[in-house]
Amino acid sequence: MTKQHTSDETVIDAEGDWQDPKVADAVAKIAQLRQSIDNIDMAIVAMLAERFKCTAQVGVLKAKAGFAPADYKREEFQLERFRRIAAAAGLDPQIAEMYRDFVVTEAKKRHKRIADAGDDPGVLDVFA
Amino acid sequence: MTKQHTSDETVIDAEGDWQDPKVADAVAKIAQLRQSIDNIDMAIVAMLAERFKCTAQVGVLKAKAGFAPADYKREEFQLERFRRIAAAAGLDPQIAEMYRDFVVTEAKKRHKRIADAGDDPGVLDVFA
Repeated sequence: MTKQHTSDETVIDAEGDWQDPKVADAVAKIAQLRQSIDNIDMAIVAMLAERFKCTAQVGVLKAKAGFAPADYKREEFQLERFRRIAAAAGLDPQIAEMYRDFVVTEAKKRHKRIADAGDDPGVLDVFA
Repeated sequence: MTKQHTSDETVIDAEGDWQDPKVADAVAKIAQLRQSIDNIDMAIVAMLAERFKCTAQVGVLKAKAGFAPADYKREEFQLERFRRIAAAAGLDPQIAEMYRDFVVTEAKKRHKRIADAGDDPGVLDVFA
């Protein structure tokens, strides 16, 4: 039985004793949507785990073959593709571009950490 | 038939005429991994579209009920949950936290854009 409501924060808890039936209805709907959000996050975290396993493998293959980390032709392909699939999925293309930027930036950071540690700087890939 | 190789960049193209059999093998493997990466990105973009549809609905419900955008109890729950599911999926928990931060930050930006436009600032949710 938690109900906490200040100007800064509202703790929404399905167990809370909301008096107003309309508010209680909103709380129930929010709880349902949050369950979907949690399921979506679980799916995305699982997909991110697979993505970083793939890019690590690409990084190793590139390093062994003596390829540079960057492949701008590939990056152009990805940018164009993200715009297309975001539009088809009903996602703001800016969010899709931010997601792409986030995974590429993180790959770069990990690349640098490995290089700084004295390991092969080509082990992690930048633009897989 | 594309083959471009400088110190800054290597355009890897499965159609390229790679002479060394080992290098040709690496190129084929990279092409295969990139197909998986592209499939993963498509799945994540679709999931992100659904997530932002959910948070928009939560924002509308919160605004109508007069709830504040923030719910730190919910945020604590999410932080703890992300650490757990990232570990289970084999994902660096830092990447999971960056993903969480990215979706929350983007929700905040969209919230502000709507407020600046003179619309209901509660329409988009911050910590759904």
